[in-house]
Amino acid sequence: MAEFTFDFGRRERIGLAEAVLCQGKTTAQISKALALARAQDVPLLLTRLSEEVFEALEPAERIEIDYDPLSRTGLFGRTEDPLANGTVAVVTGGTSDLAVAREAMRTLAFYGVGAREIADVGVAGLWRILQHEAELKACPVIIAVAGMEGALFSVIGGLVGGLVIAVPTSNGYGVTRNGETALSAALASCSPGLVAVNIDNGYGAACAALRVLHRIK
Amino acid sequence: MAEFTFDFGRRERIGLAEAVLCQGKTTAQISKALALARAQDVPLLLTRLSEEVFEALEPAERIEIDYDPLSRTGLFGRTEDPLANGTVAVVTGGTSDLAVAREAMRTLAFYGVGAREIADVGVAGLWRILQHEAELKACPVIIAVAGMEGALFSVIGGLVGGLVIAVPTSNGYGVTRNGETALSAALASCSPGLVAVNIDNGYGAACAALRVLHRIK
Amino acid sequence: MAEFTFDFGRRERIGLAEAVLCQGKTTAQISKALALARAQDVPLLLTRLSEEVFEALEPAERIEIDYDPLSRTGLFGRTEDPLANGTVAVVTGGTSDLAVAREAMRTLAFYGVGAREIADVGVAGLWRILQHEAELKACPVIIAVAGMEGALFSVIGGLVGGLVIAVPTSNGYGVTRNGETALSAALASCSPGLVAVNIDNGYGAACAALRVLHRIK
Amino acid sequence: MAEFTFDFGRRERIGLAEAVLCQGKTTAQISKALALARAQDVPLLLTRLSEEVFEALEPAERIEIDYDPLSRTGLFGRTEDPLANGTVAVVTGGTSDLAVAREAMRTLAFYGVGAREIADVGVAGLWRILQHEAELKACPVIIAVAGMEGALFSVIGGLVGGLVIAVPTSNGYGVTRNGETALSAALASCSPGLVAVNIDNGYGAACAALRVLHRIK
Amino acid sequence: MAEFTFDFGRRERIGLAEAVLCQGKTTAQISKALALARAQDVPLLLTRLSEEVFEALEPAERIEIDYDPLSRTGLFGRTEDPLANGTVAVVTGGTSDLAVAREAMRTLAFYGVGAREIADVGVAGLWRILQHEAELKACPVIIAVAGMEGALFSVIGGLVGGLVIAVPTSNGYGVTRNGETALSAALASCSPGLVAVNIDNGYGAACAALRVLHRIK
Amino acid sequence: MAEFTFDFGRRERIGLAEAVLCQGKTTAQISKALALARAQDVPLLLTRLSEEVFEALEPAERIEIDYDPLSRTGLFGRTEDPLANGTVAVVTGGTSDLAVAREAMRTLAFYGVGAREIADVGVAGLWRILQHEAELKACPVIIAVAGMEGALFSVIGGLVGGLVIAVPTSNGYGVTRNGETALSAALASCSPGLVAVNIDNGYGAACAALRVLHRIK
Amino acid sequence: MAEFTFDFGRRERIGLAEAVLCQGKTTAQISKALALARAQDVPLLLTRLSEEVFEALEPAERIEIDYDPLSRTGLFGRTEDPLANGTVAVVTGGTSDLAVAREAMRTLAFYGVGAREIADVGVAGLWRILQHEAELKACPVIIAVAGMEGALFSVIGGLVGGLVIAVPTSNGYGVTRNGETALSAALASCSPGLVAVNIDNGYGAACAALRVLHRIK
Amino acid sequence: MAEFTFDFGRRERIGLAEAVLCQGKTTAQISKALALARAQDVPLLLTRLSEEVFEALEPAERIEIDYDPLSRTGLFGRTEDPLANGTVAVVTGGTSDLAVAREAMRTLAFYGVGAREIADVGVAGLWRILQHEAELKACPVIIAVAGMEGALFSVIGGLVGGLVIAVPTSNGYGVTRNGETALSAALASCSPGLVAVNIDNGYGAACAALRVLHRIK
Repeated sequence: MAEFTFDFGRRERIGLAEAVLCQGKTTAQISKALALARAQDVPLLLTRLSEEVFEALEPAERIEIDYDPLSRTGLFGRTEDPLANGTVAVVTGGTSDLAVAREAMRTLAFYGVGAREIADVGVAGLWRILQHEAELKACPVIIAVAGMEGALFSVIGGLVGGLVIAVPTSNGYGVTRNGETALSAALASCSPGLVAVNIDNGYGAACAALRVLHRIK
Repeated sequence: MAEFTFDFGRRERIGLAEAVLCQGKTTAQISKALALARAQDVPLLLTRLSEEVFEALEPAERIEIDYDPLSRTGLFGRTEDPLANGTVAVVTGGTSDLAVAREAMRTLAFYGVGAREIADVGVAGLWRILQHEAELKACPVIIAVAGMEGALFSVIGGLVGGLVIAVPTSNGYGVTRNGETALSAALASCSPGLVAVNIDNGYGAACAALRVLHRIK
Repeated sequence: MAEFTFDFGRRERIGLAEAVLCQGKTTAQISKALALARAQDVPLLLTRLSEEVFEALEPAERIEIDYDPLSRTGLFGRTEDPLANGTVAVVTGGTSDLAVAREAMRTLAFYGVGAREIADVGVAGLWRILQHEAELKACPVIIAVAGMEGALFSVIGGLVGGLVIAVPTSNGYGVTRNGETALSAALASCSPGLVAVNIDNGYGAACAALRVLHRIK
Repeated sequence: MAEFTFDFGRRERIGLAEAVLCQGKTTAQISKALALARAQDVPLLLTRLSEEVFEALEPAERIEIDYDPLSRTGLFGRTEDPLANGTVAVVTGGTSDLAVAREAMRTLAFYGVGAREIADVGVAGLWRILQHEAELKACPVIIAVAGMEGALFSVIGGLVGGLVIAVPTSNGYGVTRNGETALSAALASCSPGLVAVNIDNGYGAACAALRVLHRIK
Repeated sequence: MAEFTFDFGRRERIGLAEAVLCQGKTTAQISKALALARAQDVPLLLTRLSEEVFEALEPAERIEIDYDPLSRTGLFGRTEDPLANGTVAVVTGGTSDLAVAREAMRTLAFYGVGAREIADVGVAGLWRILQHEAELKACPVIIAVAGMEGALFSVIGGLVGGLVIAVPTSNGYGVTRNGETALSAALASCSPGLVAVNIDNGYGAACAALRVLHRIK
Repeated sequence: MAEFTFDFGRRERIGLAEAVLCQGKTTAQISKALALARAQDVPLLLTRLSEEVFEALEPAERIEIDYDPLSRTGLFGRTEDPLANGTVAVVTGGTSDLAVAREAMRTLAFYGVGAREIADVGVAGLWRILQHEAELKACPVIIAVAGMEGALFSVIGGLVGGLVIAVPTSNGYGVTRNGETALSAALASCSPGLVAVNIDNGYGAACAALRVLHRIK
Repeated sequence: MAEFTFDFGRRERIGLAEAVLCQGKTTAQISKALALARAQDVPLLLTRLSEEVFEALEPAERIEIDYDPLSRTGLFGRTEDPLANGTVAVVTGGTSDLAVAREAMRTLAFYGVGAREIADVGVAGLWRILQHEAELKACPVIIAVAGMEGALFSVIGGLVGGLVIAVPTSNGYGVTRNGETALSAALASCSPGLVAVNIDNGYGAACAALRVLHRIK
Repeated sequence: MAEFTFDFGRRERIGLAEAVLCQGKTTAQISKALALARAQDVPLLLTRLSEEVFEALEPAERIEIDYDPLSRTGLFGRTEDPLANGTVAVVTGGTSDLAVAREAMRTLAFYGVGAREIADVGVAGLWRILQHEAELKACPVIIAVAGMEGALFSVIGGLVGGLVIAVPTSNGYGVTRNGETALSAALASCSPGLVAVNIDNGYGAACAALRVLHRIK
């Protein structure tokens, strides 16, 4: 019985290629996915690929993959997207949010899109985000990554006119409730026109950014 | 003591004008807001303005406002946004979702942006959304409005490449939980790059669309 | 059977007098409470006293009460607290938060404490709160009142050194969840040393402020 | 003191034999259950039997059991149910849902019922499920297994007339909330007549299918 | 702009006709739905049609509708389904559950299916359900309707071999949480093979029963 | 079709007579219940009988019922239980909790059991409950009724050796969450051996007390 | 700084001795507690004492303790309570509930009270509990221990007149939500006069039983 | 790319120095933070620094840090705050709450503020907290640390006039819900003017205390 029914027409259809969420899959299943991509000669993005699982792959498989442990992403080839660099800013509230931010940046990189990282600029020290105001105003898309109370989303949304995609993270403890509080804050924001993706979903934020970038160029 | 500190520079700063969420405000406060806008000669968008409250305003005030009871929106003047018509599609799962969809359309209209309405195309009869596939593929931004289980969001997200903004609605009963289920479905979607706004927030979805449209023209 | 066991020694014990939460009590019970206070010749603060219930009291009772419909507070006499004026700032995110803010101010007034109101300075237009920075820095206690995503709490907490008491309000819709989101945001804040009281509890915030003011004078 | 009171009359009474949910039981308790079944000479279905616990059983016990690690099921004998093969379809949204789907298939197999597996046909690529439409229409019972937002349930329910039993899975992260979102989506579906079982409960879905199949043959 | 996109092919496709959930729709929209059905000469089931809204329809419209206030259902014509009577039992835990039970029975009646009502047999007096044991064993489908703790579902599921469809109701107070507790109880049942539909969803339970009955006849 | 299946043997079986929860029932249904009790010549306890519904009954019916509006209870006759008076204490945290406390007292009265009411002794003024310590120590059963944070339950549980039955009430606002907080506090108490009933369930607490009193006499 | 302030007067005050909840305490802290009890020559009940922590104690300490790994209880001495044996029944729905049931039995044993264990009698096979009906009717107190949907509580409550103390357990998966569903079912029960304790709190149920037994003897 | 944007001006701005929440950060990131502080010659407070991570630091780094494993705090230098000792009381309900209490005390110590520890005085034995009443009345700020039902907060709030900062802890099981119940109890308290911080947030409570102490001296 076939375990995968790959959607290799997805990129042509919606501009985004197949990707494999490795969490919840066995190493054997991931190998099978790689074999299918190799056979079709298409690039494949692997997300939530833990170091343990990556190390359990065959050496020949590991060589094919551009792996980054912090973001837990593996790039099996890359797409060749004629998009300009530097138009997306990826902003984080704290250092703990970097892993999710990097998942977004690596996904953009898989499509040949560079991004600008602005790290550790949470609102407890407001001057930190304010010193990047002009830089952010120039970007059509800003991916804002924050945990805890997610106040950063509203502050950015009130400063700039580009599309602000909020990525709540599960960082924190107690009432942060694994990212639920930051997610609700993004959705309940007093700044108009903020949008949100799932908790810790750097991959999804990058895909949303690509949906916009495909129309801008 | 001043009750309002209007942010009349917002439109220049981020491209979106001040708006007044009328729910939770007294009629006197809404009158005061209108007076401030009139004095500054700036347009003002009024959202969640119920018929009861609208009727309680002075006749002279009511004449100044372009009011729509289904969407509960009032337009005090309009902005003059040089944006092209017809580029946004507003899709609803069922007839009960129209009020929220119209809030989005009226907000777009406030900025001079026309939109295409595609109504009552929930996935229980899949042919309904499929017959609009080509039309949707042509739009850079699709606002999808649905309550209940929100499966429509994922189906659209898998069909087209534009930015899909999900607006969950509070329609339904029981486990729809006033829109929480549709919201979670939008955020947990298997279709890549979907984004969501708050439950029943047609206004916010339109603002997000405008953030994108401002960069496309 | 006695329906009340008043704690008239409370003010001597902890510096805060008895108060009656009128919500959930019958008009007859509120009259009985007034009679007890009158008999003991002690002042009494009535909170959540709706206009309907206030109007249902006897004319002789209404005359004794200094009533404010927005904050739904009734002052039956006042305490004579030798506290200085002007040391507490009460800041609101939006106009809809004024009712709760005024409950705090009226409670302070019951104890002879004046307060400074700074209204409608939510973070969507950041310049609004920033223009009050110096004024806020001078206050030992700031009561911050906000609904929706409650980002205002974190921004104030990062700007000033006084005690910031967050009062989340139930304003908003959808994922604001009647104030739960703003409450969680206050508690999960990245700004150090913020404290919170119950949703819509302007009375409680004022009492907390008084606990501090009693030690400062 | 007896730790088990087996309900060996259950199969005669309702057509479904005793089964042991191994999660939460000690190895000694599972051995005791096997001994009771052996003594009565009745077949026994073991669910949620992890590899660790299976390996901890005595070799003699392991030989008696037909064990499958992916579905974590152990078949101690089989019932002899005169039901036709191939009438149930088991459909999965993604490869991560296979473990739960296999629990359903193994339970059906315990009763001599074969099933048709249709894997990895989530709605992000709608053509995948549509290419099985005719096959699904022929089945009186469809077991649909999906995590994330569970949109697959509604799409199948709108396509075919058989009984669609939704099995939400705990796959995903963030707002999937360990399967709660997919469960709510199944129950709030706009497709009429969908039914649901507990999260990850492939066993229960198979039992429900058997309740129907017993009446069809 | 069209407000409805009726799925009139649904009955041929899946055996279940279009139905209109009236809650959340205006009277004008319901009239429009009736006009569409009249024009196509197809029967239409109206659910959650309150007495107020029914009375607000035109007299000519009311005459066309077979209306029942307890179940809030309106039958505009009937389908002609060649299904035998008496094969479905509809069981309620208490008298307050009757409205939901009747919604199920009226939906079955719309398809020409009679059902057997067994009322007020909650488990606090166990003899009540036990005296119907034989009658229930004869039915291929049992619709069990209960609020509060929903223990009735498990008791029936352990007694009989037919498909038991649990309909949790929102009756009760406190921790019944508007039916959430009864719903969870149905899904977490120790009786194997129970299935559930949404809270108060008598209509959905009947549709599920019809999906089974269509295969049995 | 019969709407009631009364369990008139309940009192002989478990010592507690049939009772009718009037909330969620029509006036016609309540009349039918009274007729059944009249015909059988058995007493009947009516709970959650609002004044509106009571007034809607026939005058002849109202005369038969001993009605109390605060507790919303109606006594149709009384049982004759040979239990001693004064052995149960019913304690309330605040005046708003009296309605629930009285439901418990009226239920006890229906069985001929008197109770001692100790009102408005919340822990904010600890001396209030402490002055009743000896009185409470003498009671085998204490029914403690409190809303808000429910601290009263733990304090009583640590002072006395009788069975303490906590009845959380829905009084309060914000995070009291309609009694959920007080309920959780009762169940999570650091005082050993506290038990709880549903929110606002004065009736249930009295029934539990009767289960104990039946064994003590 | 003293880490413990033991309440050694508790037994005289309320009839229940000090106990130590070992979960969340370090081995050093548990040793200190034992030393304090040894010095005062009082018995001490240790709950939630895992095997790992027990093994980490000094051999001399382990010898003093009567330890049972299934219930994770340690008895350091026993009280001498002049209570009769055999009056409490401890009933479990399934074998997985035994650990919690045994915590209750061991707590009773600490006070010299024997209990009757009735195991694995869940309602899926109703004959199992019914065969113990007479035995249960004889007990003034029944401790009912069940996970999943907790239907057992209501069935027992409707059969017998003694006090039924429900102990929900965290056994199960998915919507059992670690015992929350069984807890809500106990509190929302249609059987009158059921009481509940915290999830998995066998200790608390036994303490409640003792509060009753102290008054019966 | 810089991973940290330290806010070294924070202490001058609001009186509280930068701190690093180590949970969720890699050892390399913590080392980088230490290097930045060393380079700037500023003290740094490390919270939630587990023993494993502390041991993974370089020996040279460990020597610089005053580490306490119970509170998981590391002090890299100290500030020199001219605040008087002994003015803050830190009270715990049980021994399991000590770790959180010590985090508060260590944070105060980082600023040169001593505090008074009053341990294990939960309300199950009310005499324990009452014997410290006079001592507590003398403190302008009391940090109350409690898990389970958090009744201690209300009792202290009703006894003394200083600012009571409630720190709910995640100790307990079942309905304690990892501290959510204690948190809600603090916020819903009947004692006026209580304030709360996040669950287990001893650090935040100390920062709030410092905000007050800075104004008192």
